[in-house]
Amino acid sequence: MASDTIEPVDAQPDAARHGQPTVDVPALTALLDGRYAEVRQLVRKNLVDYASILTDAETLDRSAFRDRVRQVVLEMAATGQTGMGFPKEYGGGGDVGASFAAFETLAFGDLSVLVKVGVQFGLFGGAILQLGTERHHEKYLEDLVTGRLMGCFAMTETGHGSNVQALGTVATYDAAAGEFVISTTGPDANKDYIGNAAEHGELAVVFAQLEVAGEAHGVHAFVVPIRTRAESGASRPAPGVRIEDDGLKMGLNGVDNGRLWFDGVRVPREALLNRFADVSEDGTYSSPIDNPNRRFFTMLGTLIQGRVCVGGAGINASKVALAIAVRYALKRRQFEATSPDQEELLLDYGQHQRRLLPLLAQTYALHFAQEVVAGHAHGVFSGEVGDDEAGQKFRRELESRAAGTKALGTWHATRTIQECREACGGAGYLAENRFAALKADTDVFTTFEGDNTVLLQLVAKGLLTDYSSEFEELDQLGMVRFVASLAVETVIERTSVHKLFERVRDLLPGGDQWDQEAGVLDSDYQLAMLRWREEHILAGVARRLKRGIEAGMNPGEVFSRVQDHVIHAARAHVERLVLEAFVEKVRAMPDDDGHDNKVALGLLCNLHALSLIEADRAWFMEHGRLTVMRSKEISRRIGSLCRRVRPLARELVDAFGVPEEMLRSKELVG
Amino acid sequence: MASDTIEPVDAQPDAARHGQPTVDVPALTALLDGRYAEVRQLVRKNLVDYASILTDAETLDRSAFRDRVRQVVLEMAATGQTGMGFPKEYGGGGDVGASFAAFETLAFGDLSVLVKVGVQFGLFGGAILQLGTERHHEKYLEDLVTGRLMGCFAMTETGHGSNVQALGTVATYDAAAGEFVISTTGPDANKDYIGNAAEHGELAVVFAQLEVAGEAHGVHAFVVPIRTRAESGASRPAPGVRIEDDGLKMGLNGVDNGRLWFDGVRVPREALLNRFADVSEDGTYSSPIDNPNRRFFTMLGTLIQGRVCVGGAGINASKVALAIAVRYALKRRQFEATSPDQEELLLDYGQHQRRLLPLLAQTYALHFAQEVVAGHAHGVFSGEVGDDEAGQKFRRELESRAAGTKALGTWHATRTIQECREACGGAGYLAENRFAALKADTDVFTTFEGDNTVLLQLVAKGLLTDYSSEFEELDQLGMVRFVASLAVETVIERTSVHKLFERVRDLLPGGDQWDQEAGVLDSDYQLAMLRWREEHILAGVARRLKRGIEAGMNPGEVFSRVQDHVIHAARAHVERLVLEAFVEKVRAMPDDDGHDNKVALGLLCNLHALSLIEADRAWFMEHGRLTVMRSKEISRRIGSLCRRVRPLARELVDAFGVPEEMLRSKELVG
Repeated sequence: MASDTIEPVDAQPDAARHGQPTVDVPALTALLDGRYAEVRQLVRKNLVDYASILTDAETLDRSAFRDRVRQVVLEMAATGQTGMGFPKEYGGGGDVGASFAAFETLAFGDLSVLVKVGVQFGLFGGAILQLGTERHHEKYLEDLVTGRLMGCFAMTETGHGSNVQALGTVATYDAAAGEFVISTTGPDANKDYIGNAAEHGELAVVFAQLEVAGEAHGVHAFVVPIRTRAESGASRPAPGVRIEDDGLKMGLNGVDNGRLWFDGVRVPREALLNRFADVSEDGTYSSPIDNPNRRFFTMLGTLIQGRVCVGGAGINASKVALAIAVRYALKRRQFEATSPDQEELLLDYGQHQRRLLPLLAQTYALHFAQEVVAGHAHGVFSGEVGDDEAGQKFRRELESRAAGTKALGTWHATRTIQECREACGGAGYLAENRFAALKADTDVFTTFEGDNTVLLQLVAKGLLTDYSSEFEELDQLGMVRFVASLAVETVIERTSVHKLFERVRDLLPGGDQWDQEAGVLDSDYQLAMLRWREEHILAGVARRLKRGIEAGMNPGEVFSRVQDHVIHAARAHVERLVLEAFVEKVRAMPDDDGHDNKVALGLLCNLHALSLIEADRAWFMEHGRLTVMRSKEISRRIGSLCRRVRPLARELVDAFGVPEEMLRSKELVG
Repeated sequence: MASDTIEPVDAQPDAARHGQPTVDVPALTALLDGRYAEVRQLVRKNLVDYASILTDAETLDRSAFRDRVRQVVLEMAATGQTGMGFPKEYGGGGDVGASFAAFETLAFGDLSVLVKVGVQFGLFGGAILQLGTERHHEKYLEDLVTGRLMGCFAMTETGHGSNVQALGTVATYDAAAGEFVISTTGPDANKDYIGNAAEHGELAVVFAQLEVAGEAHGVHAFVVPIRTRAESGASRPAPGVRIEDDGLKMGLNGVDNGRLWFDGVRVPREALLNRFADVSEDGTYSSPIDNPNRRFFTMLGTLIQGRVCVGGAGINASKVALAIAVRYALKRRQFEATSPDQEELLLDYGQHQRRLLPLLAQTYALHFAQEVVAGHAHGVFSGEVGDDEAGQKFRRELESRAAGTKALGTWHATRTIQECREACGGAGYLAENRFAALKADTDVFTTFEGDNTVLLQLVAKGLLTDYSSEFEELDQLGMVRFVASLAVETVIERTSVHKLFERVRDLLPGGDQWDQEAGVLDSDYQLAMLRWREEHILAGVARRLKRGIEAGMNPGEVFSRVQDHVIHAARAHVERLVLEAFVEKVRAMPDDDGHDNKVALGLLCNLHALSLIEADRAWFMEHGRLTVMRSKEISRRIGSLCRRVRPLARELVDAFGVPEEMLRSKELVG
């Protein structure tokens, strides 16, 4: 029996050996809130003012709750909160970054309000702003920023959600009339799950296959009236439009999702959102972007703000769950453990620490990663990033970061909310304790605004094409097609695979043995491990793809078989970016600012990094990058870090600044 | 770069290399239904007859839905379905095993109906039957079997759910009046989350600390009227009882959970459920079991049927989710992958297979493990198991099995339902597609009828005390106290730890190197791996406990630090039992019964076993039981097994026999 299988239990509590830091909560909140502290405070105030919406969600019937959510959204819009991202001349705040901060913070509250805001101002408003031109801006923006004009983003169809290039709705140009004719073709080509469609939307931005003079030009967006409203306020579908309510959903029942069918609906030529392509009166199609694929993905690229927002919302919803579960664990006692007279606090159990504290660390990590994504997006959408080669690369990287952070942030929310609910036992099952709504409402985050699995494939595509710039025009669904291209063009030649492996070797600063000697709490070691993993998996994927295709297999089949490695590569990449963001944030903090926040975040950062390595330690061992001894050491260190973070847990969740009213039950959180 | 990092992709589909089995669905359903096929068919018929309850759950308000659920429960009771476990002389079916089968099958439908049945017939009825004597049986059983008399199982309090020995409700014997006086002491000592309490229950079995003549005798159960009902049907709380509605819950809103306070409520001496202890008129306490701890856990032990039922319900709810997700994946196409003309079925993507098929295999495994648990419980509760030493051992093992299978089965449900929902994308978010209800209703399964983490500690306690029979009287919460005992009594002496390690070595049939040579698809290899892991972790836990205590640490602190190993040991144990059940089931199938079901289940069994090993492969590598080469081979085999199971997926979910009406949306499942 190897002696290392039985680790010694430390005889002294860690706090006695190391100085135990304390946390300055306001300073930490200020760090988390960052440059948009003021905006976040405005949203917190609005959340408290409208806190009754949390109970309305339970007491009103569906129709009344939808109306109430709409009303709250309009009143919040009047405070300027929801229009931050629109130009000032149309009543907006002229600051894209502020719009992300406002949206994220809104996720502390009722999530129907959040998603309704996202539909109206992010998706509908964003499409008008980003895909339209001045004529659309003049016509719609002012009214949509106030919420007087409500609209839909009608992209998804029953038959196509991920593969949106294959949408079935068609827009044919009728040159004689100077109009587009919009039609739903086939049984599953209706729009589906469209927010604002069932009750409140008057307009929809409809994505449809454009056909001009018998020629197909791919998917374009059109502004289509879907509902007319009489003076009395009564409304009915516009002529040629059929609307169906999506009915009860798992959550988000304050949002009126619906289905739309178009039967030869005519809209004027000017209804085409024509920033990236136009049709002249006589029916001549023109676009500044020649390649249709590239055109489509340039259009989509302008809409990534939705992904940035959803990722941030998932991360902030996790904060609410953690605030409740940690506070409950600091109040609830069960079983006499260390004392015969008093039962033990839940958070003093090792297993309970292991359940909650790494998730707390990951939430901090994702928060800072999200700050980077939002910052980059602000740069791009504020025109701070040029259109030269470097600018284009920056945009591509942003798309990848946004997709990856959205996937990890929303999966994190699902997992964290579930763990926190279970950690609160039966009390967590009662609706007043927030988990019911948090769980039901966030559930769809993992599959809307891009299915997480598909998004990770998009990330992986970006990584693979990094080695071959010709492929930047690949479509987002294009992993499969990329593989097909491999067969004929052999992009990844043996030499470039070799080059890749060389890069992997060069990653380790002090040579191949360095990582065996570095301390496991050294951030450089942790980052090098993650970088090495990412490059290594990627090289493996490239080699597998090539080998399969060279063996004469169907490219789609080859892809199918390496798909789990593809997803693993993307996850490894995003996890590395997340850790980098956390490490850089901590390193940039001053050492002598009068409190221990840097030390506290350093502990969390270590806890997060080691948890990542532990979770994939089998892979590291399989690839010779982790010895058995070191793997066990990492697990021990995680336990020890949990014990050091334990006394800071309350302050660390308080610093999130979730308003007390959003935690609801005083019984649960004390 | 080690060459083994790049595995070859098989150039031929597996089906061409190996014969592809086909599944005989009716025969497989017959195998799954087992000896209670008839009972299961009755429940399936009832589910179909009352299928409208699935929509009632969405359309009725809470109060009307509660009434509707009660009505359905009563009508189902009239078919004999819910009374299978009660003696025939009181209108029951006289077959405990049949009651498990009926309950499990009910989990295909609305889960409020299921839980209401569990509360009324399992918890309330079970307590009267198991803890009461003839006087209680005569008085209550016939009426409760029909549902004319509805009641509660009032154990949990706001302050105590897991540690029920510390309940705050007190029952004091008043010898002068010949009555018990029941009182709620302190702010968190009220009963909470009690099913049937808010509206329908007339009686409650109340668990309270018995005090006789100033002496405390621990927790006992009393029948207490909580509500009086006038001729008009109107009801009000019984004198001295305060009732509060628990309000909206995450799910199960057809069950009326509530809180109960008792203010000096008087019940006659005969209200004590006196099978295991009694109080004479003059106030003399007597019990056939001297040790109070042992007495309490003997009482609790008679109530484990609830755990058996909840585990089975979780497993069957998983079947519904898998049936929907697999059928959707065989209908839904997205992206052209292998063909330029047609998009690919979701289930033909490797990642999609990896998401769903191991969960399908695990569901089969858990089904057969549950069959073993239910069979053992039937034996115990039908008096087929004696009270000699072997019988007592059998009972202890049953308690452990029931706890472990409940924990794994309900966590499996949470995970499977989540994965299946995501695999159905936006469509899975609509309420009519079942996931909303499945997710919300099953959520509490992981923490009610014993918190899963606490239950796994109970399992681990059993394993540790196997080595020391003096400790069989440990209470269920007793891991902590067990550790405390260790300090003074040093149960696990160095020698016995050594003995344990010897046992571990002896586990490998062909010596220490055998597992390096055996085929990974050999069930004996797989089982040996799981057995070895279990014993090894257990030995590690024992050694860690001992070392910590010898070093002078607070025993509670030592426990806290090894708690994750304790949980791991228990999980390893239960996973081994589950795999054994599956392997034994497959081995017992005849080879030549005219279909390939044995081959098909063999594939599933391999897929399940290798998935278990893969999930913990880091541990196996850390402990020298798995080479890097073999670890990678196992991952490859899982991919290959998924591809072989893929063509059988529809038949494998059809064999569950979930009625079509329970899948609801035809759009989703085709």
